[in-house]
Amino acid sequence: AASCHLLHELLEELSNIGKAEEGGMTRLLYSSSWLKAQQYLQHVMQGKGLVTSYDQSGNLYALLEGTDENGRHKPLFTGSHIDTVISGGKFDGALGVAAGMVALLYLNEVYGPPVRSLAAVSLCEEEGSRFPFAFWGSRSVTGSNDWSAAGNLKDAEGIRMLEAAEICGFGPNSSYPVRPFEPDGYLELHIEQGAVLERTGTSIGIVTDIVGQKRLDVMITGEANHAGTTPMHYRKDALIGATEMIVRIHELALSYGDPLVATVGTMELLPGAVNVVPGKVSFTLDIRHTDKGIMDRFILEALLIISASAARNRLHAEWQEHLSVDPVAMDEGWIERIQNACEALDFSYRKMPSGAGHDAQIFAEVCKAAMIFVPSQNGLSHHPEEFTSEEEINQGFRVLVEMLYQYGYR
Amino acid sequence: AASCHLLHELLEELSNIGKAEEGGMTRLLYSSSWLKAQQYLQHVMQGKGLVTSYDQSGNLYALLEGTDENGRHKPLFTGSHIDTVISGGKFDGALGVAAGMVALLYLNEVYGPPVRSLAAVSLCEEEGSRFPFAFWGSRSVTGSNDWSAAGNLKDAEGIRMLEAAEICGFGPNSSYPVRPFEPDGYLELHIEQGAVLERTGTSIGIVTDIVGQKRLDVMITGEANHAGTTPMHYRKDALIGATEMIVRIHELALSYGDPLVATVGTMELLPGAVNVVPGKVSFTLDIRHTDKGIMDRFILEALLIISASAARNRLHAEWQEHLSVDPVAMDEGWIERIQNACEALDFSYRKMPSGAGHDAQIFAEVCKAAMIFVPSQNGLSHHPEEFTSEEEINQGFRVLVEMLYQYGYR
Ligand SMILES: NC(=O)NCCC(=O)O
Ligand SMILES: NC(=O)NCCC(=O)O
Repeated sequence: AASCHLLHELLEELSNIGKAEEGGMTRLLYSSSWLKAQQYLQHVMQGKGLVTSYDQSGNLYALLEGTDENGRHKPLFTGSHIDTVISGGKFDGALGVAAGMVALLYLNEVYGPPVRSLAAVSLCEEEGSRFPFAFWGSRSVTGSNDWSAAGNLKDAEGIRMLEAAEICGFGPNSSYPVRPFEPDGYLELHIEQGAVLERTGTSIGIVTDIVGQKRLDVMITGEANHAGTTPMHYRKDALIGATEMIVRIHELALSYGDPLVATVGTMELLPGAVNVVPGKVSFTLDIRHTDKGIMDRFILEALLIISASAARNRLHAEWQEHLSVDPVAMDEGWIERIQNACEALDFSYRKMPSGAGHDAQIFAEVCKAAMIFVPSQNGLSHHPEEFTSEEEINQGFRVLVEMLYQYGYR
Repeated sequence: AASCHLLHELLEELSNIGKAEEGGMTRLLYSSSWLKAQQYLQHVMQGKGLVTSYDQSGNLYALLEGTDENGRHKPLFTGSHIDTVISGGKFDGALGVAAGMVALLYLNEVYGPPVRSLAAVSLCEEEGSRFPFAFWGSRSVTGSNDWSAAGNLKDAEGIRMLEAAEICGFGPNSSYPVRPFEPDGYLELHIEQGAVLERTGTSIGIVTDIVGQKRLDVMITGEANHAGTTPMHYRKDALIGATEMIVRIHELALSYGDPLVATVGTMELLPGAVNVVPGKVSFTLDIRHTDKGIMDRFILEALLIISASAARNRLHAEWQEHLSVDPVAMDEGWIERIQNACEALDFSYRKMPSGAGHDAQIFAEVCKAAMIFVPSQNGLSHHPEEFTSEEEINQGFRVLVEMLYQYGYR
């Protein structure tokens, strides 16, 4: 109960760091509000007796060292990311960071040092909201980041990522290590960011897989023309082609069923005047599934729809992939232990895929990874009104503590 | 032949006034390039012995006064507009202005003063490209403009229309008359701005009607959601509703047949991020027909499609009309005379509606109006590459001269 109290206190304090004028909070990588949040967490952890450290990228670690010689050097990591989207909510990332840190404090206080090391981590970047690059923090831990390439990425103001890191005291030329230790596993508590748990009245989501993602840019070219003087059958209206494609791709997505999702989130018309037939239309297509084979088949069928619809409407279609991430499975052993814990604690649970990308998918490349979801009210996320009740958070926190206990103390 | 030479010279000179960096020319109302064009035309007409004058709005008149007492005070007007869209072409507007002026010079030179007065007019604004208001020039002539309201309209830089007019020496406080004389009729030579004449191998278009127009803003509201965590059947995707509506409205438009045209030229998605289901989509719908009853019925059916599609997709739909112009018919007597002239001159012709708005539709409210179209290569207009060949222009010019002769000298 006291540890739950501290957890909510930390979440409340974090929600005051980087408060955005438009509502919610904005903590972009290597900004002053982001640095303030890391420093605040470090201050709290140190004050409560945990050993803290940073790496070159700015990830913050709080270590609870194991007493067993063998288990000491590769801790089980728990945490999430501290950066937010612009005007993000109170829980996306921050919940997992605060819960991991408070869980270690609690275990240390009640049971003393563990047999096997535990490390809480506040990862420096997941969203990719400042620089066009997601999972920088987790990639640093797992060894797949690359300063020489990413350092030159620029933010909206033209500031280079390396420059921004150095202003905060980080970067490859700082005195911080590349990474202080390697993970033996990774456990992340996160809000669902969807409405499945809420709609099914479930307390805990046990993530089975994190979906693969592909993002395509589709460009349709027809012929711009005067809306008044061009009869319907003379037109090469790029929008008529694009709308037909979107309607059919949506029908195809429905026919595939869950967990396939396909989304057109942006669309641009050229020249884009009320009395001009659109000559060019571009749109993005975001496609996700837990099964790479099914995802690839869907994309193939979607591209056939695009080609056929372009041909039928005398248009030209081109596309380009701009993101491709394979699906990953969470560790089956962890899934079973989380399920057992839910049953012992009498918490309703549901095994489910994660439709959103998470740091856990990066860790899964190098160690056993698992995720615990708690409900998001109205499925809202990346939004100032993101909300999960204290009771729901406490249930997720208890499951996390139980898992860390099982790993560290038995 | 000499007069044709002068016509092409004038067109060439005008195309050098207001040359735009992006190609083509930009002569926005009350800009320095617009004023330069009017002054250039005035200079040429005066030099060749015509009496010129301006009105308060900046319309330029060149009068060929009739010898008959009765026909002197209400001239037949011929002309078009001298303003352009941004990066417009060489012929849209300028052709009719130059042709009207050169026709008067030719008739005066060959036949002396007419019995009934003829006036060539360079109308100061048709496009509405600087201020959100079309047909200002022709409305000034026909008496339906209103400085007290329109004077406060602002351009993209925040300059008021009255202010801009006064910088050029015009406006209600200038010494120019409201209008120097009233029109007995109006005859306009213009490029088709479409591809019907070219595709049918026709030299002259005889305009029967100018279409009515309605422009609607349609707003579709669903629910913005995370593209990864929101299963397909939980979504309220405003874009899926909007695309379905656009596809069906397009099918409806095809089923109506010519001359109905319906165009979605702009579309905006909110929030407009690759991984967010669109919560709001707005689009414009531009609808035209020569028959108001048919146009109104089409709009009713389109709105039913929108309502039904919104309901089926659990979305909310709203709309708003932001332009409504009734169709007008051109004068039957003029149509017949133009047809007879084409036959006599052995020019192929085609009676056709105008799908674009023109000054003639404003004149048609107060006098007999008619329009002569010449082909537009590839139907291109409002574009730097707008093109009509010298031969095609000469044919249109000859028909115009014949009409002015028949009115003024018989
Ligand atoms: N967790 C999360 O919202 N990640 C953002 C990337 C995505 O999944 O679209
Ligand atoms: N003639 C012409 O292009 N007018 C512009 C207004 C329109 O018809 O869309």
